[in-house]
Amino acid sequence: MISRRSASDISFGEFALIERFFKQKSVADDYVDLGAGDDCALLSGRPGEQWAVSTDTLLEGVHFFSNVEPAALGHKSLAVNLSDLAACGATPRCFLLAIGLPQIDQTCLAGFSRGLLGLAEAHRCALAGGDTTRSTDGIVITITAMGTVPTGAALLRSGARVGDDIWVSGSLGDAALGLAFRRNQIELSATDASLMVDRLERPTPRVHLGVRLRGIASSAIDVSDGLVGDLRHVLTASGVGAVIDWTRVPRSPVLQQQPVNVQQRCALSGGDDYELLFTASSNRREEIAAAAEAIPINRIGTVTATADLAVLDEQGTPVDTESGAYEHFLR
Amino acid sequence: MISRRSASDISFGEFALIERFFKQKSVADDYVDLGAGDDCALLSGRPGEQWAVSTDTLLEGVHFFSNVEPAALGHKSLAVNLSDLAACGATPRCFLLAIGLPQIDQTCLAGFSRGLLGLAEAHRCALAGGDTTRSTDGIVITITAMGTVPTGAALLRSGARVGDDIWVSGSLGDAALGLAFRRNQIELSATDASLMVDRLERPTPRVHLGVRLRGIASSAIDVSDGLVGDLRHVLTASGVGAVIDWTRVPRSPVLQQQPVNVQQRCALSGGDDYELLFTASSNRREEIAAAAEAIPINRIGTVTATADLAVLDEQGTPVDTESGAYEHFLR
Repeated sequence: MISRRSASDISFGEFALIERFFKQKSVADDYVDLGAGDDCALLSGRPGEQWAVSTDTLLEGVHFFSNVEPAALGHKSLAVNLSDLAACGATPRCFLLAIGLPQIDQTCLAGFSRGLLGLAEAHRCALAGGDTTRSTDGIVITITAMGTVPTGAALLRSGARVGDDIWVSGSLGDAALGLAFRRNQIELSATDASLMVDRLERPTPRVHLGVRLRGIASSAIDVSDGLVGDLRHVLTASGVGAVIDWTRVPRSPVLQQQPVNVQQRCALSGGDDYELLFTASSNRREEIAAAAEAIPINRIGTVTATADLAVLDEQGTPVDTESGAYEHFLR
Repeated sequence: MISRRSASDISFGEFALIERFFKQKSVADDYVDLGAGDDCALLSGRPGEQWAVSTDTLLEGVHFFSNVEPAALGHKSLAVNLSDLAACGATPRCFLLAIGLPQIDQTCLAGFSRGLLGLAEAHRCALAGGDTTRSTDGIVITITAMGTVPTGAALLRSGARVGDDIWVSGSLGDAALGLAFRRNQIELSATDASLMVDRLERPTPRVHLGVRLRGIASSAIDVSDGLVGDLRHVLTASGVGAVIDWTRVPRSPVLQQQPVNVQQRCALSGGDDYELLFTASSNRREEIAAAAEAIPINRIGTVTATADLAVLDEQGTPVDTESGAYEHFLR
């Protein structure tokens, strides 16, 4: 399925590209018996473990801007998949990269590879194989990430129980604010803009937090589509409702300088934060604080029996989370 | 990462799409503990087995024509990945589907799903999860297929030994002829055209043959880029050379009606046949015949010590396999 015409001085042949740009040096992964270079990668699991597998596609012009820094794109392509593993409490082991490029730009590829493999090595996640193709319209990236969890220990969306606390890591809405800045919808100081765009383009997957929440959290999901939307997935899967205290929803100092409607729009419905949203029994609070270590976490609400989601502001008035104001900025 | 705007009357939400179009009925797969609907799929392997994993992207206008029949596209999207599993001798277990669509066309999606799940069910391969996005330019499909092999039994490209026979299943070049017809480069009768286009658009992954060749073949690869190109991968990985007898290269009755230069171009360099090319010791011929059962197989050459590939015609003259005549028709 590979187009073998060369676009520049480097062939699109998988081997040439992989050898030159995607050779990992330092990841020794016991789980990968055979990596890139054959028809399949060969993996061995361990007794008493399950594989957790996730796949995500990123398209130029839909999920990232054409002028994104290549290293940031490489980082984010893997980060969004590691975030899915984190939401299951899985330890990353390896990934496959399928990439379609309109042409071979060596500087771009070198940057992309640096961002991608930098994050991979930080998590000891091996590039086990992939596919390279020539695309006609923009860059197309699909990564499939694979991690492991002790059998039965994966954090699922379906485990939230009535009375559970609702927690979220980090702060919400920064990526949406960075996106609004990138689209010239708001103005920010250079320092603030840099911080927010970094949150959009270099998200931190909460891998270690996810692993440490195994056996403590009752459910988890990563916030990729926005707090309200992703919490609804958990509530639907668990057959429960929730009340969220808007004043407790964590917002960065930069976001807090914005008008309250922008704060709500970004923190409640903005996507791409890749923080962990999780539930746990209220008698697990000390364990959760210990599991979080240096990562800031906040208790933002409670799981309820009524199949409904309410976000209450400081006056106890429901915030409207259904209006058009809560659509994604991008597209 | 999901664009949540609805394009038609169906939302791009993963759940809506998956529930409506990609619900499998009859695949009970012991290896999939948790399928689509959470952040990750959860899989359990078996002691003494390895996972074989492969990923391939298909792009509209690059790997398939915009007017391809949706059911054929669904079939081929999975077939090319099952063919990679076959080349390793792996038994398909499950797959993940990442699909980007410019709009929701229900008739198209229903057809795509029918072709995809039809092939999946034939191989008892479970759809374990995926990702849906809205694309801006054409359909983007990435499938990651996962199968299992007894540990150490996978067929690799690196196992060919000097003196081994070289075998290929089915016939070669039909897909290339079908592609030439689709591009109005040649004329064919309606019956012949239908046969050749079917070979291009509905390839048969040689899954059962791959499994039965475990322990018999010394190396294997699927013919996706053309006999010469794919055989070179085996020779390079194994550090050997080969002599191929052109007169033994299997060609269909339809292809045999073409001029010899077209036959050579299609059968030696045409991609997309998805036949199995494998090597085996000459004392395994009876076992190979038994393993092939009803699938036609042909012994087309011999592995040599000189690191070179020669294709010899009926006069023993080398066929030129390096010229521009051997580029892909498509692109």
